[in-house]
Amino acid sequence: MTDRDVLDADHVRRFFAVLDARDWDAVRTLVTDDLVYDVPQTRERIRGADAWVSFCVAFPGDWHLAAGRVVVDTGRREAAVVVDASSDGEPLLNLAFLRFDDVGRVTELVDWWPEPYEPPARAGVTVERY
Amino acid sequence: MTDRDVLDADHVRRFFAVLDARDWDAVRTLVTDDLVYDVPQTRERIRGADAWVSFCVAFPGDWHLAAGRVVVDTGRREAAVVVDASSDGEPLLNLAFLRFDDVGRVTELVDWWPEPYEPPARAGVTVERY
Repeated sequence: MTDRDVLDADHVRRFFAVLDARDWDAVRTLVTDDLVYDVPQTRERIRGADAWVSFCVAFPGDWHLAAGRVVVDTGRREAAVVVDASSDGEPLLNLAFLRFDDVGRVTELVDWWPEPYEPPARAGVTVERY
Repeated sequence: MTDRDVLDADHVRRFFAVLDARDWDAVRTLVTDDLVYDVPQTRERIRGADAWVSFCVAFPGDWHLAAGRVVVDTGRREAAVVVDASSDGEPLLNLAFLRFDDVGRVTELVDWWPEPYEPPARAGVTVERY
């Protein structure tokens, strides 16, 4: 099996679909035992797939995740994903950076949760709001 | 010139280095006239390279940008970057998603500025802080 077979955007999307489905046995097969999960904004780190799955199982709220934009570097086995996330029906901004092993299992997941904010006035340039 | 020649991690790093150097003439050659700049957290959008360069020129503070982790999809001409950013010496978390044309110029830049925050208590799992 080549890198190209295992790591493409569809593979990355399936990971988030299986996570969203809370199919924990399937999730467990898609990550390595020594998975590392990082949240840079809180400087939190969880080591190991079992601990990370426990964290997901216990995570409060009716959360949902679906991979939106996916950028995949097949050769280096890395991906960056803009995740369409929500919690109890409220949309959330979520970005994920992942590394994969040579059979496509996730070895590292770095998770970002940027909050909306009101921008300052911008000098001398036309800025649209959408 | 093939895609692989123009779009690799070094090319992406050079874009941020030239921006950091405020070499505006060089910056202008690295983006297309119809560049679109988006900030999803504020829902701001700037259309056109000239408007975007004006925005950068006017941006307050002694800001610096250096590409850290770079994920490049050469075939789709996209990249995601964890940027080592700072303003007046204070480190900032910055993520950028970019699209490129067939000669390696940036056509779209989506800019994220996640803020640090204190995490809630996490039930039933060991979480390290780093």
